Amino acid sequence: MTILIKNISLNGQQTDVLIKGNVIAEIKANISLSADKTIDGKGKALVAGLFNGHNHAAMTLLRGYGDDMPLMPWLEEVIWPTEKYLNENDVYWGAKLACLEMIKSGTTTFVDMYHFFPGTARAVDEMGMRGMITQAGFDFFKPELANRYKLEVERQFGEMSQYSNRIRYAIGAHAIYTVSGDTFKWLSDFSKQNNVPIHTHLSETIGERENAINDFGASPVQYLNQLGILNDQVSLAHCVHLDDTDIHILADKGVQVVHNPASNMKLASGNKFRYDAFKKAGVTVAIGTDGPSSSNNLDMFTAMKLASFNGKAAFGDPELWNAEETFKCATETVESITGFKSGKVEKGYLADLVLVDLNRPEMVPNHNLISNLVYSANGSVVDTVICDGKILMENRKVEGEDEILKNAHRIAENLVNRKK
Amino acid sequence: MTILIKNISLNGQQTDVLIKGNVIAEIKANISLSADKTIDGKGKALVAGLFNGHNHAAMTLLRGYGDDMPLMPWLEEVIWPTEKYLNENDVYWGAKLACLEMIKSGTTTFVDMYHFFPGTARAVDEMGMRGMITQAGFDFFKPELANRYKLEVERQFGEMSQYSNRIRYAIGAHAIYTVSGDTFKWLSDFSKQNNVPIHTHLSETIGERENAINDFGASPVQYLNQLGILNDQVSLAHCVHLDDTDIHILADKGVQVVHNPASNMKLASGNKFRYDAFKKAGVTVAIGTDGPSSSNNLDMFTAMKLASFNGKAAFGDPELWNAEETFKCATETVESITGFKSGKVEKGYLADLVLVDLNRPEMVPNHNLISNLVYSANGSVVDTVICDGKILMENRKVEGEDEILKNAHRIAENLVNRKK
Repeated sequence: MTILIKNISLNGQQTDVLIKGNVIAEIKANISLSADKTIDGKGKALVAGLFNGHNHAAMTLLRGYGDDMPLMPWLEEVIWPTEKYLNENDVYWGAKLACLEMIKSGTTTFVDMYHFFPGTARAVDEMGMRGMITQAGFDFFKPELANRYKLEVERQFGEMSQYSNRIRYAIGAHAIYTVSGDTFKWLSDFSKQNNVPIHTHLSETIGERENAINDFGASPVQYLNQLGILNDQVSLAHCVHLDDTDIHILADKGVQVVHNPASNMKLASGNKFRYDAFKKAGVTVAIGTDGPSSSNNLDMFTAMKLASFNGKAAFGDPELWNAEETFKCATETVESITGFKSGKVEKGYLADLVLVDLNRPEMVPNHNLISNLVYSANGSVVDTVICDGKILMENRKVEGEDEILKNAHRIAENLVNRKK
Repeated sequence: MTILIKNISLNGQQTDVLIKGNVIAEIKANISLSADKTIDGKGKALVAGLFNGHNHAAMTLLRGYGDDMPLMPWLEEVIWPTEKYLNENDVYWGAKLACLEMIKSGTTTFVDMYHFFPGTARAVDEMGMRGMITQAGFDFFKPELANRYKLEVERQFGEMSQYSNRIRYAIGAHAIYTVSGDTFKWLSDFSKQNNVPIHTHLSETIGERENAINDFGASPVQYLNQLGILNDQVSLAHCVHLDDTDIHILADKGVQVVHNPASNMKLASGNKFRYDAFKKAGVTVAIGTDGPSSSNNLDMFTAMKLASFNGKAAFGDPELWNAEETFKCATETVESITGFKSGKVEKGYLADLVLVDLNRPEMVPNHNLISNLVYSANGSVVDTVICDGKILMENRKVEGEDEILKNAHRIAENLVNRKK
């Protein structure tokens, strides 16, 4: 399969782009070749597909179900009591809805952590997206739960051949307050032996940090470092409450960080994500939405804007998080975190691409495309999405959209009624 | 002209809504009447048109032209040197583009302050929106400029009969550091004699506050209070840096405040807008985008999300700015600030209405419509917009859209080239 995109604006220049199979084969003006599919790029700009670095996709089902609450009461009183009634079919439809929302807003790859792994993996695979999928793992410091957790990791990893290459397995460890140090060490050994990334929440609230110091005698980062699990296969979501020592450890170990501005702001978990300190230390910073019941959408354009605006506001520095850097955090970081060679519009990269409609009021004038994308646009400026060399959306139409909306709506209603 | 909206969801109930002329005439199920136009409301929700409380509409022309800078260097080095080359035709097309963007994101009324008043007023009038339009007034503490300013106010006010009732004149006083106290007093007298509102920027940066204390021996609010100009005809944009005394003065005088979260965050002017203190004191708080070169869009859905998320984050309180309150700030405040009986879907109110498409991934599930609108949606969920009983957008199509985009694009290019 070949796709030829004609006369598209790329970095301010008109060009053609040829996709062969799942990679970008050629970028130059006037490619004359008959491709299986030709796309007219006139009036559009080409950028890399966006990367959502932290998600709980199927939580779309709980979007708007419990807002305006702090993290722990929200989890303990609203989310966890409802999630008890979840099943794999719910997760499948919740994840389909999430994928639909992400495709419609230009995301081609995301990192997920949730329950019923196969529900999410199957949804992502069918929708044609790329995902580094984890199951949220817990042992609550109980040996029997730790055993079950380990068996599940082994089983899930062993079953990956049923999915396409667009789905990568990673170990999901929920948090240091729900997973014991011994289990973290076992997971780390498994990660090293099998070349499997680890994704975990860390230092999301000041309470988590204080508890770690009380319980483990170390900050969350320093605790994980003492366990010996920090390396470049590890990505950490949140990292809101870190001191200089923590940041230097992460830089030293090559650990990568995912900032989730919407969730951190809405739950008031903390607004001082230390982007500048991470940048100076050389830590890779990606951006995520977090789950759609705390974010409350999966639009990476919103996430970029929030990362930049909140960063500038919280540190009183309008030069922080400039548009170019913010856009890179939301695209190029995909490669080092997930291992997929995606996130750039360059020959040899995976054909994970977004065509942006420039004929929209919020994109006019076009003094600076990246500024418009980060500061002005929302996901609805995305016209066409290509992932792995296949068209997932064209002219804003995604196959099967109505069925997904209908089923997800019904499933979400059933879920909250089951709880009642 | 009558419009009948059939089977629309209003506050969670299915109903019909009849519009006669420019007002909401009837809201009940099963209205059987043949109207001039019938709209099928199935799969849609009806809400009030949004109110953008502070804008410099024609600054669309400078969107993305100078980002990531603090307020004063941004104004002095980028904006003002470019604005010197503006003419009325530029402002007309810049304002047309702004109106198009606002209509497409569900705003029906806005407050504007910019140069070349007739350019903006004509654009708003033609686009069918409602506007409280001001000219940005300055005297820079010079008597000859003060005289010119006063003559302009008198002339503009005298020329209002050429516009429809949807356009209301208000006095624009740029700021206390660009308009002298004597001129403020003259404007206040003019306001009282002619029942004309006054709109001004106030306490946007900490520098402005400190300078006022140095120059006038009083905080910005207390300085205006000493001049005797504070009353319920006055609305103040920004008000980021206020103490308890300031807030109680505003409450006592019935002064209204417009919060501009995007601009305050992006320019790092201050992120601690004291919403809770205003609320407790009984001060009306509206939300604005500010001009599109500091916001950088005119989407009130973005503005609502930023107001709420930033408020929660900056004060560390996830219960602040709940979805319901935030939505009211962005709708119901229009009446007391502009005098237009708009902002509510109630019999007798002006027919300024928005039909929201519920069949979109970010609006599914619909556990809580207002939460979805404030926290999840962006302006592209708006399907149909009615203002003053006329349809401005139906199925996301606005008349003349292509021509506006083309002209505004060309005008913006010319403007920055003229400067070079």
